[in-house]
Amino acid sequence: MKRKSVGKKQTKRSRAKRRIVVLGAALSGPAAAARARETDARADIVLIGRAKAVSYSVGGLPYRLSGEVDGIGGLEPEKAKFFRDVYRIDVRTGATVTAIDPDAKRVITDAGKFRYDALIYALGARSVWPEVDGLRDSTNVSTLRDLADLKKIERSLDKGTGRVVILGGGFYGVEAADCLSRAGRLVTLIERGDRLLPDFSGAAAYRAEYALRAAGVDVRLGADLVSVRKKGKRIQGVELSSGSKIATELVLVTAGVAPRTELLKAAGGKLHPNGAAKIDARCQTTLPDVYATSIAVAHKHAVTGKATWTGQAADADKSAQVAGENAAGGDVRLGPTLGTAIVRAGVLTLARTGHLDPDAQVTTVSGRSKDPFFPSHGPLTVSLYSNDAGRLVGAEVVGTDGVDKRVDVLATAILGKLKVAQLADLDLAYSPPFGTVRDVVNAAARVASRGNEPIRPWTAQQLEVPPDGVLVVDVRSAADRSEGFTASHHIQQKVLLMPLAKVGDRIKDLRGHKHVVFVCDSGREAYLAARLALSARIKNPGYLAGGLRLFGPELHR
Amino acid sequence: MKRKSVGKKQTKRSRAKRRIVVLGAALSGPAAAARARETDARADIVLIGRAKAVSYSVGGLPYRLSGEVDGIGGLEPEKAKFFRDVYRIDVRTGATVTAIDPDAKRVITDAGKFRYDALIYALGARSVWPEVDGLRDSTNVSTLRDLADLKKIERSLDKGTGRVVILGGGFYGVEAADCLSRAGRLVTLIERGDRLLPDFSGAAAYRAEYALRAAGVDVRLGADLVSVRKKGKRIQGVELSSGSKIATELVLVTAGVAPRTELLKAAGGKLHPNGAAKIDARCQTTLPDVYATSIAVAHKHAVTGKATWTGQAADADKSAQVAGENAAGGDVRLGPTLGTAIVRAGVLTLARTGHLDPDAQVTTVSGRSKDPFFPSHGPLTVSLYSNDAGRLVGAEVVGTDGVDKRVDVLATAILGKLKVAQLADLDLAYSPPFGTVRDVVNAAARVASRGNEPIRPWTAQQLEVPPDGVLVVDVRSAADRSEGFTASHHIQQKVLLMPLAKVGDRIKDLRGHKHVVFVCDSGREAYLAARLALSARIKNPGYLAGGLRLFGPELHR
Repeated sequence: MKRKSVGKKQTKRSRAKRRIVVLGAALSGPAAAARARETDARADIVLIGRAKAVSYSVGGLPYRLSGEVDGIGGLEPEKAKFFRDVYRIDVRTGATVTAIDPDAKRVITDAGKFRYDALIYALGARSVWPEVDGLRDSTNVSTLRDLADLKKIERSLDKGTGRVVILGGGFYGVEAADCLSRAGRLVTLIERGDRLLPDFSGAAAYRAEYALRAAGVDVRLGADLVSVRKKGKRIQGVELSSGSKIATELVLVTAGVAPRTELLKAAGGKLHPNGAAKIDARCQTTLPDVYATSIAVAHKHAVTGKATWTGQAADADKSAQVAGENAAGGDVRLGPTLGTAIVRAGVLTLARTGHLDPDAQVTTVSGRSKDPFFPSHGPLTVSLYSNDAGRLVGAEVVGTDGVDKRVDVLATAILGKLKVAQLADLDLAYSPPFGTVRDVVNAAARVASRGNEPIRPWTAQQLEVPPDGVLVVDVRSAADRSEGFTASHHIQQKVLLMPLAKVGDRIKDLRGHKHVVFVCDSGREAYLAARLALSARIKNPGYLAGGLRLFGPELHR
Repeated sequence: MKRKSVGKKQTKRSRAKRRIVVLGAALSGPAAAARARETDARADIVLIGRAKAVSYSVGGLPYRLSGEVDGIGGLEPEKAKFFRDVYRIDVRTGATVTAIDPDAKRVITDAGKFRYDALIYALGARSVWPEVDGLRDSTNVSTLRDLADLKKIERSLDKGTGRVVILGGGFYGVEAADCLSRAGRLVTLIERGDRLLPDFSGAAAYRAEYALRAAGVDVRLGADLVSVRKKGKRIQGVELSSGSKIATELVLVTAGVAPRTELLKAAGGKLHPNGAAKIDARCQTTLPDVYATSIAVAHKHAVTGKATWTGQAADADKSAQVAGENAAGGDVRLGPTLGTAIVRAGVLTLARTGHLDPDAQVTTVSGRSKDPFFPSHGPLTVSLYSNDAGRLVGAEVVGTDGVDKRVDVLATAILGKLKVAQLADLDLAYSPPFGTVRDVVNAAARVASRGNEPIRPWTAQQLEVPPDGVLVVDVRSAADRSEGFTASHHIQQKVLLMPLAKVGDRIKDLRGHKHVVFVCDSGREAYLAARLALSARIKNPGYLAGGLRLFGPELHR
């Protein structure tokens, strides 16, 4: 957030009491109202919300289902009183806004009209529903967007221990499937496309799918819901385009969300094609004195410069503070988004940040979150996306421990326009309880900074069914192999076993192939083998970048 | 690490087999040797070490004492064989180097002479001992620098359950005190100076002291060891300059380390005044074809640009890779250090990065590591040091959870030359298991970017004995106060109780003081109260930045 000094005009205007109306009381609305109060101690501030609760965490809802959050109380504190008493905000809950009149500077609600000097629009998003007859009007179908949804789901779940069907394998669907499976529920996750998590790379989506399956989730890709079977108002089963029938106790709809911007549009405010509100750097809409925040707006992307809708609560909070301060007479600018996101899937956590540019150089390296002698360490895979100038433009991190730390470091690096070569020497905190002397971020950056070298990194997908003429060589020691991952389970051809210590002596066994690809658990020994092979003039040596653990979670030890 | 393309000269030279000799087999030596092998598959590489073990983690030693690392095996794997077989390195352990002859390009050891084309000097550091009669030749006194030390300590500890005296309250002393107290040992930590942890701010050192005391460690500051009482070769007690006598079962010397650079100096290599080896960006010493790494060298600091000795293993690993690659004919450059460091002290973890410039603007804000409804969240305090241009130059983080993540983000931000205003909107990953929508880094940066405003942030130290004319006002609600910290235990004057909700009505009670300082648990409500007071024209309103939890760990709930 960049700050400009407040000019004379503002000083004069502030002598009259400013009236700020905020629409939306979930998370961004209250945050904007609070910031407005911190900016202007005298303003009249009205907060209007449809639901009864004020300032609750939409993001926390799934973690009530997993049982990690105790009781609903934690998500629904008695905050209306707090906002009234401490922030002196006029809180109007249970009120529905019907129109905005930008000429008269009024908001019309079913609880009366409200004049404003500045309006903050924070109505968030609504869920997208699949168009299937009889789905929406059932008693045991719900989205997971507010406290009413949560109560409905909890009532349905209390009735039995049957299967939950989740419709939609994006961010919210994966999160819900993870949380419900942690609570011991039987879950079927249905996704129309051929992969999960569209905001992530195919490689990461593949690992999420694998990890959810390992956690007992029945993942169905390329699956379309065609009908529901009901008894009265209650769904008893669903049928897919494949003909599969799945009995179910509860259907959860996580097929995506759309910005709730109809009122803004009706008032003449401009939207992006996906329905997100257009805002400038001050979070002002195209209407005078109307600001917008929450996941109803698009943010400027730090790498692409394009207006980008992320749907992330952390973005919403940032625009809420800027909208709140500016609506109260301040003059601050909103910084860019990086599209940072994090989600759990079984034993794995997956995170992404920046622009996963398909034209970028991608470097994938696996390592461990902490020293291997320290308890609670886990495997981590980092993929760095760098452009022609060697600058980091995007990153993905997948692992069982410390994923959030690495993605946050990489988000910061992208904002700081760091080159991968600089990240190789980035001075991260080391002590055995917290990391390793050579963090996987450093290691990945060092490999990325090698640039074009004659050793080719291969991906897990490329090796599942290797092209003709590829020799795959497992260079782990017999001991490591016996404890580790069985390469031949996933690589659909014969794998030559040749411990790294023997590569020098057996180099002639590697001749006569188009490509020789070395594999090991992490990628490091395999890279070393490829260097040895190169110096012995073996043609086209390569290695499985990121190691065999890319193939699935069974190596997460 | 910046990389240059390898020129023609290198291509020619590499046709003859290069002979690389590495001195030092603890951590940096093996890392450099491995990197040399990855760079040159054909070179002859000799690794010479004094001890029997190869490639062990010096940093892991204290965590064996805490019991967190199981058995000594994890720290001392059978790596000599691995280096011989896999990296084809000629490993010579148990050999002591006596001289380097840079003219003849030879190393002289008690196990013979070794010619080199390139030499890598990685002899690390030695412990500094207090000069007290009879201390050093005792059987139950030890440093904690290698596996032999560890074995000696474990033998002494097995004999009884008495008190351990630790000499020196720097990084190593605090780490040892923390680890031994975790194992249930009685510990007295003796520091000559008036504070712990000289690389940290006074405020952080104060919190470390407090947290160690809360964990049962007897911390003695301004305390000088004057004599030891012995029975035979065994120390039975120590006496301090104050006259205090402490019976002890084991004395641990952690009074600092000094670079082990005598051999380099004797050969004509230049050193910094503190004894650290002078190296250029290629990690080359002032001697031809002699490279240096490990904590024997000084690194360039990213903020000050000055040669800085950090003693950190992560710095040593970075120079090891650069020295190893360049010694093998590569041409890479070492990136700068940030002096990043992390240490535990009781329930707290403390971390620092960059330059804690006494002339910088310091902004301190407290928050929580995760959503308060999510289990395992904990309090966190972030202090940002920014320069006149608003750029982040240093940072400290203190808390019970997620300290490592925040300090790594801030280290990356310093390297990326980010301004605090940019950090306010930094898009960090949010989901309840990993953070909050408004990370404490964002919150601190937002406060820091406000620049000069009429509301003064006060530190805990300034409020312990407030200057004359200061009114201290506790604005927490009665409920929060009853669960929280008792302000009056630490603030040596009457504290006025005025819940934030009442400040507007009781504004006249605040008039007539030179300064009014509001306090609460985190600093946020207090800041809001100060804003209200300012708008009501109260003179010099301020707030306790970082909140009452700065006073100690009892608020760590």
